[in-house]
Amino acid sequence: MTSTTDKDRVVIFDTTLRDGEQCPGATMNLDEKLAVAELLDTMGVDIIEAGFPIASNGDFEAVSEIAKRTKRATVAGLARAIPADIARAGEAVRHAQRGRIHTFVSTSPIHLAHQMRKSEDEVVEIILKTVAQARDLVEDVEWSAMDATRTGIDYLCRCVEAAIRMGATTINLPDTVGYATPEEYRDMFRQVRERVPNADKAIFSTHCHDDIGLAVANSLAGVEGGARQIECTINGIGERAGNAALEEVVMALRTRGDVLPYDTGIDSTMLTRASKLVSHATNFPVQYNKAIVGRNAFAHESGIHQDGMLKHANTYEIMTPASVGLTKTSLVMGKHSGRAAFRAKLTELGLSLSDNQLQDVFERFKDLADRKKHVYDEDIEALVDENLATAHDRIKLLSLSVIAGTRGPQRATMKIDMDGRTFTEEADGNGPVDAVFNCIKAMVPHDAMLELYQVHAVTEGTDAQAEVSVRLKAGERSMTARGADPDTLVASAKAYLSALNKLSATSVRLHAQHAATV
Amino acid sequence: MTSTTDKDRVVIFDTTLRDGEQCPGATMNLDEKLAVAELLDTMGVDIIEAGFPIASNGDFEAVSEIAKRTKRATVAGLARAIPADIARAGEAVRHAQRGRIHTFVSTSPIHLAHQMRKSEDEVVEIILKTVAQARDLVEDVEWSAMDATRTGIDYLCRCVEAAIRMGATTINLPDTVGYATPEEYRDMFRQVRERVPNADKAIFSTHCHDDIGLAVANSLAGVEGGARQIECTINGIGERAGNAALEEVVMALRTRGDVLPYDTGIDSTMLTRASKLVSHATNFPVQYNKAIVGRNAFAHESGIHQDGMLKHANTYEIMTPASVGLTKTSLVMGKHSGRAAFRAKLTELGLSLSDNQLQDVFERFKDLADRKKHVYDEDIEALVDENLATAHDRIKLLSLSVIAGTRGPQRATMKIDMDGRTFTEEADGNGPVDAVFNCIKAMVPHDAMLELYQVHAVTEGTDAQAEVSVRLKAGERSMTARGADPDTLVASAKAYLSALNKLSATSVRLHAQHAATV
Repeated sequence: MTSTTDKDRVVIFDTTLRDGEQCPGATMNLDEKLAVAELLDTMGVDIIEAGFPIASNGDFEAVSEIAKRTKRATVAGLARAIPADIARAGEAVRHAQRGRIHTFVSTSPIHLAHQMRKSEDEVVEIILKTVAQARDLVEDVEWSAMDATRTGIDYLCRCVEAAIRMGATTINLPDTVGYATPEEYRDMFRQVRERVPNADKAIFSTHCHDDIGLAVANSLAGVEGGARQIECTINGIGERAGNAALEEVVMALRTRGDVLPYDTGIDSTMLTRASKLVSHATNFPVQYNKAIVGRNAFAHESGIHQDGMLKHANTYEIMTPASVGLTKTSLVMGKHSGRAAFRAKLTELGLSLSDNQLQDVFERFKDLADRKKHVYDEDIEALVDENLATAHDRIKLLSLSVIAGTRGPQRATMKIDMDGRTFTEEADGNGPVDAVFNCIKAMVPHDAMLELYQVHAVTEGTDAQAEVSVRLKAGERSMTARGADPDTLVASAKAYLSALNKLSATSVRLHAQHAATV
Repeated sequence: MTSTTDKDRVVIFDTTLRDGEQCPGATMNLDEKLAVAELLDTMGVDIIEAGFPIASNGDFEAVSEIAKRTKRATVAGLARAIPADIARAGEAVRHAQRGRIHTFVSTSPIHLAHQMRKSEDEVVEIILKTVAQARDLVEDVEWSAMDATRTGIDYLCRCVEAAIRMGATTINLPDTVGYATPEEYRDMFRQVRERVPNADKAIFSTHCHDDIGLAVANSLAGVEGGARQIECTINGIGERAGNAALEEVVMALRTRGDVLPYDTGIDSTMLTRASKLVSHATNFPVQYNKAIVGRNAFAHESGIHQDGMLKHANTYEIMTPASVGLTKTSLVMGKHSGRAAFRAKLTELGLSLSDNQLQDVFERFKDLADRKKHVYDEDIEALVDENLATAHDRIKLLSLSVIAGTRGPQRATMKIDMDGRTFTEEADGNGPVDAVFNCIKAMVPHDAMLELYQVHAVTEGTDAQAEVSVRLKAGERSMTARGADPDTLVASAKAYLSALNKLSATSVRLHAQHAATV
């Protein structure tokens, strides 16, 4: 969906994979990042900030892969005002159809004094050099004045002018600490754009945090002040209280186009799917009453509202559920569904798989359909998610049996395959989940700590497929993984093993306990 | 904490127990409502809207009990513009030290045409009569113009003038559909207050919904337009995308007192506890990146931010965790802790129990301490929550054993006590949780459908106590309950039985299956 009116175009810059992914616990693996980036590109995001290339090899690889694969969107890599950062970001986006280097430096007195320990003149010198370096590498350079909202306006204008002079094409003025009010934020853009002589040579950008609940209002106020790019994230994830939520910004502009005459290029019917994908990939639940994408966002409980809704949907609804891609959970597939129908269903759900993956997921689907009367869209999404997560597993679950209950101790017996060899173990535990995890720890000793254990029912009914999330922490590295199965305990074992597999793929060395070999 | 400066005082009207509780799935029982009301009163909320007395006997009883018990706050009951509603609300708040009737009627053309099917003149007549009736019953009457933000300004002024003329002391102009922008909302208050001749005789109030993410910004804009009451809820729960979040409004005013010179009477150090209490009572999880009360709201992951934080907390933090009552989870109690220490801990956690309840919870604590190495504050909170939830149970779990695993079918054996008699049952299931629930359904046949099944680990570690939430729906009535136990399956059984107990206390008739009697 592209702009078809005479409204001004506002560019959507999604930073789910950078500011979102860097918040505690939201770590995604490469496959998850690629899936998110593909969906963002399809839904019409203009710029995808794919990561912070210097931060780690994993970040570099993610930005680089996304740069190669993305078809429509510009792909940006973040860089501090340091030559090595900028070089690395340039390398990461080199193969993009449209690549951007996004470099930033603090401009507020408090950051200069306490974090940078540099003078105002020194920071201007840094801006001149680093923006010039970035422009030597790519045409499209964004420069951000970190903590802009706590920077004096004179100095801010001086920095912005310097960045534009050296070729920055986008100027981002972030509310880094989530501190500004809408009036202040609007005024800052107005003043900077009025006072900086070369302001018309760059697009101005908002970047708002929600620490006092004003991220969306501030983003819109920034646009009223002249900004034409909004930086935001799916579900509003991000540092601390998160960033402005992409879905809220987009739907505010769409719903109130009468007083906010700006268009985005976003296909809003993909918002619900994007929210679910990011929630699954990060294991961050979406609050029920979250605007646009919460499960209650379009629900009407009170008798008064239901009555109004029945009489005229417009009485309480300012946008339709369909406009954000929300459809009722529909019974779709059963044990008699064939491969062609299954493939068509995947396409309808926006899921694309390789032939190998399809074969694997189809077999799991048939197995599930044998055991479960109703197979819902969400069940299929969970199967696909699980398939992606277990693509390169060193350890696989072969069998599990558990005895549990009020009498204790609970006991689990488990058989796994690790690197082609089979291991069996029996362990007690304080609860059946503890027993299951103790089996794994006995077979594959490791130092990782369990940080999070969560179970969700994927669909309704007592035969719901359970989806378990497990987060393990090893050293500084956290890894979250999911497992899905009608049996909660089997799902728990799968999730724990998947997290271990993910850790072993990155940093943690795993050796099976030889004593436990069968 | 009361106003000590020359800032204008803004009154906080909390509607967690009315607008919050009426959203799908947030139903609370009487004990939970009393606990929430007590905390709201203690933290300095000025007006507690306790419910909608005509809606059900349960609602009436809740408003009436809260009215009797509340020490500082005004207690309000909601009423449509119908004589029977107003009489019932008056009866419910009769014993309050300060009681308020809050009556409302739609004023927007779309509501008049499609929902009310009345003319503008007819609605003015209704306002005159109903406000007069309410004023005959109580001194303190709030009148709301439902859908005010989609009402023409001339007609809105006419309605407001009529309500004030008949004695309304508070005039609420809600953004019922979450539609307004901050500018529009501010201007509406300015215009109404300028044009209505008797406007100075009432306090004006905001009531904002978050459908496009602007609830907090709109509330603050309303105050700038002259409103001096903000209607809000803990965690921002409420119809659809919810209401303005109390904690965000309060902390925005506190943090930005330099440009928003208004005081509230809220002790902000109780915000975290209030958020947890409401999240537990409603079983609505709080999004990790929720402003103020999300678990990431004060977390700093990225190296850059951590570096800044270490050098100077102010570089990235505009408020301290302590200012909202956030303290680190502390190891507090173990198996050698005595009753006095346990009671002191409960007091420290803000939990007050009767002697009987204390005895019961203390025994469970000792039992837990035997099985679990570290007992955290959250464990104790979960025990107390569970105790409150099971106070009046007809059905109790006596024992459970389960056999589960990849080979299936899973099998559960369960013994319960119902109304003093013992029943035993064995059942298979598709997964161990299904088997457990099938046992219950065999022993206590009922029509309720399982709507939600969730498991949370209460504290970290593999011996974490599991907290399971179950929501059952019978007819139009949904009931959510929790169970906590180190064994997930035992917690699941407890949660399901607790939900059944809650349903049986209200609407659903339960009979044990006689064939299953032992």
